[in-house]
Amino acid sequence: MTNTQVTLVQIDNYGPWTVTPEPRREADLQTMQSRLYADISQFVGNRGGYVFFTRFDNMIAVTNGVDLEDHALLRESVGNRYPVTLSLGVATGTTPVQALEDATGLLQDAGSAQDKNRREVLDGRIVGEEFRTPEDVQIAHFDVVNATGQYTDRLNAFDTFIEIEQGYAALMKYMRHTHDSLSFFVGGDNVIAVCPDLEAAEYEDAVAHVEETAGVTLQVGAGRARSAHEAGIAAKHALETCRADGSRVELEW
Amino acid sequence: MTNTQVTLVQIDNYGPWTVTPEPRREADLQTMQSRLYADISQFVGNRGGYVFFTRFDNMIAVTNGVDLEDHALLRESVGNRYPVTLSLGVATGTTPVQALEDATGLLQDAGSAQDKNRREVLDGRIVGEEFRTPEDVQIAHFDVVNATGQYTDRLNAFDTFIEIEQGYAALMKYMRHTHDSLSFFVGGDNVIAVCPDLEAAEYEDAVAHVEETAGVTLQVGAGRARSAHEAGIAAKHALETCRADGSRVELEW
Amino acid sequence: MTNTQVTLVQIDNYGPWTVTPEPRREADLQTMQSRLYADISQFVGNRGGYVFFTRFDNMIAVTNGVDLEDHALLRESVGNRYPVTLSLGVATGTTPVQALEDATGLLQDAGSAQDKNRREVLDGRIVGEEFRTPEDVQIAHFDVVNATGQYTDRLNAFDTFIEIEQGYAALMKYMRHTHDSLSFFVGGDNVIAVCPDLEAAEYEDAVAHVEETAGVTLQVGAGRARSAHEAGIAAKHALETCRADGSRVELEW
Amino acid sequence: MTNTQVTLVQIDNYGPWTVTPEPRREADLQTMQSRLYADISQFVGNRGGYVFFTRFDNMIAVTNGVDLEDHALLRESVGNRYPVTLSLGVATGTTPVQALEDATGLLQDAGSAQDKNRREVLDGRIVGEEFRTPEDVQIAHFDVVNATGQYTDRLNAFDTFIEIEQGYAALMKYMRHTHDSLSFFVGGDNVIAVCPDLEAAEYEDAVAHVEETAGVTLQVGAGRARSAHEAGIAAKHALETCRADGSRVELEW
Repeated sequence: MTNTQVTLVQIDNYGPWTVTPEPRREADLQTMQSRLYADISQFVGNRGGYVFFTRFDNMIAVTNGVDLEDHALLRESVGNRYPVTLSLGVATGTTPVQALEDATGLLQDAGSAQDKNRREVLDGRIVGEEFRTPEDVQIAHFDVVNATGQYTDRLNAFDTFIEIEQGYAALMKYMRHTHDSLSFFVGGDNVIAVCPDLEAAEYEDAVAHVEETAGVTLQVGAGRARSAHEAGIAAKHALETCRADGSRVELEW
Repeated sequence: MTNTQVTLVQIDNYGPWTVTPEPRREADLQTMQSRLYADISQFVGNRGGYVFFTRFDNMIAVTNGVDLEDHALLRESVGNRYPVTLSLGVATGTTPVQALEDATGLLQDAGSAQDKNRREVLDGRIVGEEFRTPEDVQIAHFDVVNATGQYTDRLNAFDTFIEIEQGYAALMKYMRHTHDSLSFFVGGDNVIAVCPDLEAAEYEDAVAHVEETAGVTLQVGAGRARSAHEAGIAAKHALETCRADGSRVELEW
Repeated sequence: MTNTQVTLVQIDNYGPWTVTPEPRREADLQTMQSRLYADISQFVGNRGGYVFFTRFDNMIAVTNGVDLEDHALLRESVGNRYPVTLSLGVATGTTPVQALEDATGLLQDAGSAQDKNRREVLDGRIVGEEFRTPEDVQIAHFDVVNATGQYTDRLNAFDTFIEIEQGYAALMKYMRHTHDSLSFFVGGDNVIAVCPDLEAAEYEDAVAHVEETAGVTLQVGAGRARSAHEAGIAAKHALETCRADGSRVELEW
Repeated sequence: MTNTQVTLVQIDNYGPWTVTPEPRREADLQTMQSRLYADISQFVGNRGGYVFFTRFDNMIAVTNGVDLEDHALLRESVGNRYPVTLSLGVATGTTPVQALEDATGLLQDAGSAQDKNRREVLDGRIVGEEFRTPEDVQIAHFDVVNATGQYTDRLNAFDTFIEIEQGYAALMKYMRHTHDSLSFFVGGDNVIAVCPDLEAAEYEDAVAHVEETAGVTLQVGAGRARSAHEAGIAAKHALETCRADGSRVELEW
């Protein structure tokens, strides 16, 4: 059974900041957001976690192996280097959705995302080192079959993006509502889903669902491990098998 | 009439690179991609342009005011500092979609996005300084009415994201097919659209369409200028008027 | 005759900030400083200028070709993205030292570097586009002859650094007092000097002086152009000639 | 007794890379170097270590608490995100100089810094977790008494820099040869020294030596702990005491 540790990373009072005292240059906001994401990705990633940019002002991370002291250090380090601060809610659950629900609740209970007095909250609980197992995290790595040949090299870049995006929109809803999973677009034609205990049949259903509703053909590799990184690397290897063999679903565990 | 200059920024042969000789750490790919985007955002942005991350391996930029020499410098500078290289296609058109169509074609004609012999292409044409007008670029800045109160502070962070994302998916398709516009999610609950000559009625239709199909209520400010930055700042000010007055569409020109 | 445009970039009230409310993590200060420098290097560098990290809280730039509007944009962009702000003094002079003297004076007249009410000053004058000439900037690029073979591969890394550093300390003083030049260590075994009109004899003297006083053998290439970048590239090519031919001083103009 | 763990971080074959196939833009080299340093500073720093930019192509780090697996991850992550690669030598010793001597020797034995076949070396030994003590690392943080009032606000920015630099040059040699310590300029008017077991008398001598030989008046706080960060924070607090009390040497242990 999975035991996913999820962290909600929220920039404090960000919306108002972007327009105070006047709307700030969009290019600077984009730069700041994406560099902040990159830094968090390094911090979490080199401790075995994954973080997804999501809405940039609200990022979702899988943090099995990252303890509360690490979270406090991330909060401090960002506060030292950026013009904005972070609040962090951390929770664990047998499904990623449940964990995120709890992590979100911790921040919501502390105040609104746009409450200027709610700053640098850190609250929650982790999976203790002694309770971690090699089945805590399940990661599925999807991509679009022959995206380059079918879309990128043939359509204009926005129409390609629409195809990828509609495939993602269909997948994210299906995986959320049918399988309590959190799916994130990670660039190119790739989507990474954080899942509870799913088997091949569920992934086959998801692939079929996206093909039917969005007309986009996916393939997927899945892995399972103590941490998002290890599960994710297994998923990547499984996806390489799809690419080599033409199969649609490969599990590596 | 608008005369949008669009640049397609494509990382050369990126997909294969990410898995050679083995799949690379996802956190490193995310970091590298988002920092590359941030750098391009600064380069283009401090020359008055806008760049959108889109799929990260294919970014779309509005580059009125950025000449071919600047593009060559961007290509060189990225080549000096990253493990990947860029190809750039530049075109102009009376609609953003037409310009992007041509910009994409230039790169497609030069070879596949995954052709390892097609590297650092730079091709295209710009709007010459003497032909630039204050109506060349039209930018619309959308956001979700009361997103924090209605979603962020009430739903879990992924369910909020689903709402924002479905609103964006509906908007991007509608604006593309009805109005030849390119719409990009830029974080939070914000979408920036690059448009041809549109008026209030078209924006009202778009807002109504998204409300009907995705159940998400948008407001939008639009601006028009010689460059994306200037048009975008006008759009941001117009959107501030929506926020202050409760109106749904504001034009500032 | 050279006409160097120099910008003094000063972080406002930085010292006190680093210890308020408590001393901040050194790693974060180092990261923030060096990234701020990197960003300014890109901004100035892709407009043909050079910026040197110097003391990091006070950086010195050669900015021929960068106008006051560009400086204002740099100040705004840093203010949007960092927890600190910049003040900028800009001046021109027939020697780099004179220009820097004036640029420094502009900031000093506006208030102390640690005056918390003196923020985001921008003052000064540039070399107007119509007055620029191909002899405005002279750059000399020094390095240590066979540094790798003689030091890096033989001594411990700090003892190598001591040698390079003592060579630099001797050169910087000599070039400052004898030739009104500003010399900066730029990494490895490289020093870049911003000079007035000097000829081979002056460079030969400088090389001889460092050999005598610090026991370090230098070679140098020099270039001259409208901008620091162009002069610097010529200097680099000249230095390549030294490396190929074993000569100690090469001029490329 | 101290037991300092030192890592030598060397960019592989960097000099030749900077001029192949032609000399690269200096601004890009500066940007790449300083961002690479910043990344390593975050990686090492958020594990309790300190890294100093030194010559940028050869950086020296104090890495007590950073194990060999972490070093391997740093090497991999840089390889994934930069156009250059790193070699790492790690050693421990009762003096910082001895540790660095050994760390350097490991890389020298593996090949020249400019050997194009010597890439991504990682060799060495760490202080095992079970052998770490609260006296392993001693850090001294020096700064110049009233640098802003005496130099920054009065001299031109280069002449101020010369003063700071000459003070540093005197200190680095003295501390190296008299006390087996490694001293690094870290920006502003600050120097951080990594020391063996020194007491107040040795620091008083060092301050007196720099005053006599370079005419620069220093004050210094020193700390001692299991890691560079903890020792460094203690040193910073001790230095705050100097600033408050006007004393020249403060120890906090």
